[in-house]
Amino acid sequence: MSDEDRYERGRARFLEVHDERALGQVEGLGELGRAIVEFAYGDVYSRPGLALRDREVAAGAALVATGRSSQIPQHLRAALQAGVTPDELREIILQTATIAGFPPAMNAMSTLKTVLGETGRE
Amino acid sequence: MSDEDRYERGRARFLEVHDERALGQVEGLGELGRAIVEFAYGDVYSRPGLALRDREVAAGAALVATGRSSQIPQHLRAALQAGVTPDELREIILQTATIAGFPPAMNAMSTLKTVLGETGRE
Amino acid sequence: MSDEDRYERGRARFLEVHDERALGQVEGLGELGRAIVEFAYGDVYSRPGLALRDREVAAGAALVATGRSSQIPQHLRAALQAGVTPDELREIILQTATIAGFPPAMNAMSTLKTVLGETGRE
Amino acid sequence: MSDEDRYERGRARFLEVHDERALGQVEGLGELGRAIVEFAYGDVYSRPGLALRDREVAAGAALVATGRSSQIPQHLRAALQAGVTPDELREIILQTATIAGFPPAMNAMSTLKTVLGETGRE
Amino acid sequence: MSDEDRYERGRARFLEVHDERALGQVEGLGELGRAIVEFAYGDVYSRPGLALRDREVAAGAALVATGRSSQIPQHLRAALQAGVTPDELREIILQTATIAGFPPAMNAMSTLKTVLGETGRE
Amino acid sequence: MSDEDRYERGRARFLEVHDERALGQVEGLGELGRAIVEFAYGDVYSRPGLALRDREVAAGAALVATGRSSQIPQHLRAALQAGVTPDELREIILQTATIAGFPPAMNAMSTLKTVLGETGRE
Repeated sequence: MSDEDRYERGRARFLEVHDERALGQVEGLGELGRAIVEFAYGDVYSRPGLALRDREVAAGAALVATGRSSQIPQHLRAALQAGVTPDELREIILQTATIAGFPPAMNAMSTLKTVLGETGRE
Repeated sequence: MSDEDRYERGRARFLEVHDERALGQVEGLGELGRAIVEFAYGDVYSRPGLALRDREVAAGAALVATGRSSQIPQHLRAALQAGVTPDELREIILQTATIAGFPPAMNAMSTLKTVLGETGRE
Repeated sequence: MSDEDRYERGRARFLEVHDERALGQVEGLGELGRAIVEFAYGDVYSRPGLALRDREVAAGAALVATGRSSQIPQHLRAALQAGVTPDELREIILQTATIAGFPPAMNAMSTLKTVLGETGRE
Repeated sequence: MSDEDRYERGRARFLEVHDERALGQVEGLGELGRAIVEFAYGDVYSRPGLALRDREVAAGAALVATGRSSQIPQHLRAALQAGVTPDELREIILQTATIAGFPPAMNAMSTLKTVLGETGRE
Repeated sequence: MSDEDRYERGRARFLEVHDERALGQVEGLGELGRAIVEFAYGDVYSRPGLALRDREVAAGAALVATGRSSQIPQHLRAALQAGVTPDELREIILQTATIAGFPPAMNAMSTLKTVLGETGRE
Repeated sequence: MSDEDRYERGRARFLEVHDERALGQVEGLGELGRAIVEFAYGDVYSRPGLALRDREVAAGAALVATGRSSQIPQHLRAALQAGVTPDELREIILQTATIAGFPPAMNAMSTLKTVLGETGRE
C-alpha cells in the first residue's frame, strides 16, 4: 500500500469514527495530523481484529485514566456513535475511578454531561 | 445492604472476575484489601449496566495507559476469562500505544506473552 | 450499616471537610457522585485512624503531585478549614516540587493565591 | 550562606530525616546527589514553616500518588521516624487510593509491609 | 557563593532563557519562585556542561511528554530563542508522540501554532 | 512507498539508532513491534528535519520525565552512540529533575551508571 493509499484509508476510517469537523482539526496539525490519520486511523484503527465499539471502550478508558482532557469529548462522541450507550459510558468512567482515582473520573463525567447535552441525548 | 453483605457480594464478584489466589493477595492488604473487595468489586464491578467483557476491555486499556505494571497480569487473565481473545488483547495494547505511547505498550505486550505462556494459550 | 446510612455518614463527613456548594457539585455527578460520598467520605474519610488535618496534608500533596488541577481548589479550602495555615500550604507545595517537579507546583501556588484571595485570608 | 554551608546544612538535615546508608546512595549519584542534598534537604526540608511529620505525610502521599516506587521505602521509613504510626501510614495509603486509584496504593501497601517487617514493627 | 549571588546568577540566567515578563510571573510565586530562580536557573541552567539549545530541546520534550500545559508556551519561546527552529520543534513534538501518545502532542502542536503566531514567525 | 519499503526503511533506521539485539526484542512483539519499526523508525525517526543527536536528547528527556524505566537503557545507549557525552546525559537528567521531580531522575541516573559500566565508558 502506498503512502497516499494509507492516508486515504486513514481518512475514511477517521470519518467513520469521528466526523468532518474533527478531521479538519487534526489536518490542521500538519505532519502530526498526517501521522495521526495515516498511522492511528489508517494502520491501527483499520485493523480487522477488534470491533469499533471495543476500540472506543478502550480509548475512552485510556483517555479518562491518563486525564487527557482535550481528546475526551471527541472519543466520548465516537463511543456513542459506535453503539456504547450513555449509561455504559457512565459505568466505564465510574470503573476507571477505581484504577486512576476519582479526580480524573469527575472531570470525565462533567465532560460526558456536556457531550450528551450537545447531542440532545440527555 | 449491610457492610457484611457488601463484602460477600464483592468477594463473590471478585472470584468471578479473578480467582482464589488473587483474592488471597488482596485480602492480605488489610483495610485497603477490604475497600477493594467491598467498593471496587462489591459496588462497582457488581453494577448491572456494563458487561464484564466491556469492564475488562476498559480496565486493560486504563492499566496499560497508566503503566500500572503490577496489576496488568491480573487483569489480562481476567480479560481472557471474560471472553476477550488473545488477538483482541493485542489490538487493545497496540491501540493504547496511540494514546499513551509505545513504551507502556511494549511492557504490556511482554506481560501478555508471559500470561499466555502460563495459561498455555500460546 | 445500610447503604442509606453509609450515604448519610458520607454526606455528613463531606460537609465537615468541604461545604454545601461542593456537595451539590458532587451530587450532580450521578452514580459517580454517590460513590464519592459513600466510599471516599462515608468509608475512607470517616475512618478514625488519621486526623482530618493529616488527611488534608496528604490530599493536597497527592493532588499537586498528580497535577489534578480541577480538585486542587476544593482541597486547599478543606486544608485551610482543617487548620493547615497558608504558610504551611506554601511549604507543602514547595516540597512537592522536589517530588513531582516545578511545573505542577507553580500551578498549585497560583491556585492557592486565588483561593486565599477569595477567602480574604491574603 | 556559602555553597559549602548549604551542603553541610543539607547533609545534617538528610541524616535527621533518613540515615547514613540512604545518604551514601544519594551521594553516589554525583551532581544530582549534590543537588538533592543542597536543594531538597539544605533549602526545602530545612525551612522552618512545616513540621517534619507533616513533610513526611505530604512526601508519602505524593510518592504513592505518582507511583514512584523506588523512593517509597525510604520515605515510609522517614515517616515512621518522624512519628507517623504504621496505622496512620495505612490510612494515608488508603486515602491516596481515592485520588490516584487502587493500583499504586496496592503497591505501596505491600512496600509498607516489607518496611515494617524489616524494622521489626510488625 | 552566597545566597544573594545564587539568586543574582539565577536571575541573569533566567533572563537569557526567558524574559522580564516571565520573570515577573515566577517572582510572584513567593518562596517557590525564589527556589525556581536560585535552584533551577542559578544552579542547574547555569551549569556549563550542556548547551542552552540542548537544554531547551530536553525541556520541551519533557514538558510535552508530561502534558504540563501551563509551562509549554514559555519553553517553546525559550527554545526558539535558543536557536531551535519551528520545524525542529514540530519534529520534537511529533517524536514525543511515539513516547507519550498523540493526545499530549496534539495539545503541544496547537500551543506551538499560537506561540509562532504571537511572535510573527508563522 | 510500499508497506514493505516502510518496514525496510524503519529497520535500517532502527539499526542506526540502536542495534541488532534491540531490534530482535522489538520484532518479538508482533504487530506492535511492526508498528514501532514502521511508524516510529520508518516514518518519524527517518524524517530529515531533526538531527539524530537532537532526537536522542528529546527521547532521553521524555523517557526520564515519564519514568518509562524499561526503555531508558536503550535510549541512553542510543544517545551515547549519537554523540551525546556521558556528562551531557548527566546534565539532561539533572535538568529533567526540575520538570518531573527528583525520584525519576534518581532512577535514570542509576540506570546511566549501569549503562556506562556495561559499555566500559566509566
